[in-house]
Amino acid sequence: VSSGLLMADEMDEQPDVLGRLVARRDELLAQVRAILPTAPVRVAIVARGSSDHAAVYGRYLLEFAAGTPVALTAPSLQTRYGVQTDYRGHLAIAVSQSGRTPEIVAVLEQMRAHGAATIAITNDGDSPLADAADLAIDLRAGEERAIPATKTVTAQLAAFALVAEAVGAVPWTPVDWATVVPAVDTVLHDPGAATRAAAAIGDATGAIVIARGFLFAAALETALKLKETTGLLAEGYSAADFRHGPIAVVDAGLPVLAISAAGPCAADVAETADEIRARGGHVLTVREADADLPFDAAVPEALAAIPATVRGQQLAHALALHRGLDPDAPAGLSKVTATR
Amino acid sequence: VSSGLLMADEMDEQPDVLGRLVARRDELLAQVRAILPTAPVRVAIVARGSSDHAAVYGRYLLEFAAGTPVALTAPSLQTRYGVQTDYRGHLAIAVSQSGRTPEIVAVLEQMRAHGAATIAITNDGDSPLADAADLAIDLRAGEERAIPATKTVTAQLAAFALVAEAVGAVPWTPVDWATVVPAVDTVLHDPGAATRAAAAIGDATGAIVIARGFLFAAALETALKLKETTGLLAEGYSAADFRHGPIAVVDAGLPVLAISAAGPCAADVAETADEIRARGGHVLTVREADADLPFDAAVPEALAAIPATVRGQQLAHALALHRGLDPDAPAGLSKVTATR
Repeated sequence: VSSGLLMADEMDEQPDVLGRLVARRDELLAQVRAILPTAPVRVAIVARGSSDHAAVYGRYLLEFAAGTPVALTAPSLQTRYGVQTDYRGHLAIAVSQSGRTPEIVAVLEQMRAHGAATIAITNDGDSPLADAADLAIDLRAGEERAIPATKTVTAQLAAFALVAEAVGAVPWTPVDWATVVPAVDTVLHDPGAATRAAAAIGDATGAIVIARGFLFAAALETALKLKETTGLLAEGYSAADFRHGPIAVVDAGLPVLAISAAGPCAADVAETADEIRARGGHVLTVREADADLPFDAAVPEALAAIPATVRGQQLAHALALHRGLDPDAPAGLSKVTATR
Repeated sequence: VSSGLLMADEMDEQPDVLGRLVARRDELLAQVRAILPTAPVRVAIVARGSSDHAAVYGRYLLEFAAGTPVALTAPSLQTRYGVQTDYRGHLAIAVSQSGRTPEIVAVLEQMRAHGAATIAITNDGDSPLADAADLAIDLRAGEERAIPATKTVTAQLAAFALVAEAVGAVPWTPVDWATVVPAVDTVLHDPGAATRAAAAIGDATGAIVIARGFLFAAALETALKLKETTGLLAEGYSAADFRHGPIAVVDAGLPVLAISAAGPCAADVAETADEIRARGGHVLTVREADADLPFDAAVPEALAAIPATVRGQQLAHALALHRGLDPDAPAGLSKVTATR
C-alpha cells in the first residue's frame, strides 16, 4: 500500500509546476494569439472528468474575455449521432491530461475539420490530442502517477487563465500571477486544516460542495476528488442551482463545503450556506478569512479557483487517510479512460 | 398530509398536457420561424433546476437541428460579473415554469438587449419572463401545485423538440409525435414497476442515474426528482463521464438507474452498467424491452426522454411513499426560487 504518497508528492509539486507554466506566459500568449480566429472569437471546449472541471473554469473566463457565448461540447453529438457542427470562427479547446482519451481526440479532429482553430491542453506534447491541434499547450507537469489528478488539474486551470488573457480583457492583472504560487504553497504547508475538516466529515456517506461563478469549477473538482479517493457520494453544485430543489437533501449533519472568495458571488454562497445551516447541515467554509480551509486573500477571485482546488485535493487526501483508504489507487480506476 | 395526491394528479395530466401542446405544432413552428435570426442560427439557453434539465435536452436537439455549437449560459456572468455578452445572430431561449425567477428574467433581458431573438418557455404567459421575450411559448399545463415539477417539465421537453423542428432537421418525423402521448399513458398505467423499483432501492442513502446523448437530461431530472421527494443523494451522470473517476463511488448494493433507448448511445449505457454490476452496484434499467422500468419501443430515441422522465417521476413518487414521506411538499422547499 502506497498510503497516498504519490498523490501527496504530486500535490506538493504544484507550486513548481504552476511557477514554470506562469513563467511561460509571454510565449503562451503569443502562441495563442497567433492562431486566434478573427474577432468576434467564439469558443467551444471539450473534456471529460477533472479536465471537464478545468473546462468549466475556462468557460467562465473565456466568455468574460471574448464577450461571446462559450459552448461546452456534448461529445456524443459528434461521436455517436454524426452531427456535423459548424465551427468556423471558433477557437476550440480540448483538455485531457493524457491526451489519449479517444472521444476527446475524435471531437477535436472534427472541430478542426469543420473550421475551428484548435488548442490541446495536455500533459503530453507527443499525444494524439497534441498532434490533432493547431497549438498544443504542453503543461510539462511531469508524469502523473496517482489516479486522482492533482497537479495536472491546477495546471489546466492556469492554462485556461493564460488562454483567456490572450483572447481579451480579464479580471486580473499580470502581477496578480505572483500571488498564486505562494497561495498554493501556503495551503500545502497547512495540512492541519484539512485533517480537522476530514475528521469533521468522519464517516458521512455523502457531502455537497457549493460555489458560484469563477469558483464553481473548484466545487465540481472537489466533489470528484472526494468521490475518487473515498467513494463518498459528493456532488458539486452552483450555490444558486442548489436552492432550486436539491437543497432538499440537506438533513442534520450533512457535510457541505462552501467555497467562495471576496467578489460578486460571495454573498450568494454565504446566503445558501445560511439556508443549509438552518436545515441542520454542517457547513465547512473554504475562503480567505475565518475559514475551515483558508487560502490567501491576495489572490483575486478569478484566480482563486487554483488554491481552492488545492484545498479540495488536500481534504480528499486527508479523508481517505482518515478512513484507512489509499488515495493513490481508488478501487479499480485506471489513469486513461477509453470512452469513445 | 396530502400523501402525494397533487404530484400524482399532475403526473396523470401529462398525456393531456402533451397532447394539447403537440396539437399546437403547426402554430408553434410558424411562431418560432417568424423570429429566427438569419442562418447560421446560434443558440443559447438559460434555466435553473428542472427547467435546466429541459435545457440540456434542448441543447442536444438544437445543436443537431442548427448544426452550430449551443451554449448553456452561466447566469452569474451577466447578473454578477456584468459581462456584456454579444448575442447577435443568436436564438436565446429561457425556460422557467413560473416565469418569475429574477435571474432568468434578467439574463433573458440582457440577451435580447445584446442582439438575440428571444423565446420564453414558461407555464405562465403573463409572467415577467414571457413579457421579456419576443415569443412566449406558454405551456398551458395548468397550475402546478406540487413542489416537484412534473407536467411542466415534460411539456418543456416537448416544447424544445418543437423549437428544434422549427430550426432545422431533427431525428424524428412529425408522425412520431403520435407515439409520445400513448407511451406516457402506458407508463402512468403501470405503477407496479415503479413500486417494485422503489422497494428495491429501499432505504439506500444514495443513488446514481446514468444515460447518454438525447436521454442524458432524463437522468439529470430523475436524480433531481429523487432528491426532492426523498432527500436521497441521487446524482445524474453521463454514462461516459461516470467512468472518468466517479465510478469509484459504486460499492455493493448502490442503486444505479440506467436509462437508454435503442440508438447510438445504448451500447455505452449498457457497457457502463456492466462495469457497475461488476463492482456490485444494483442496476435498475429504464428502457424499452426487458427493463425494470419499461417504456414503449415505438418512441424514437430522440423523443424517449419524455416517457423516461415520467418513469423517473413515478419512481420518485413511489420511493417517497415507500419511505412514508409526502412527495408533494418536500421539507422547506417553495415553488418559486428567488435567486437573482
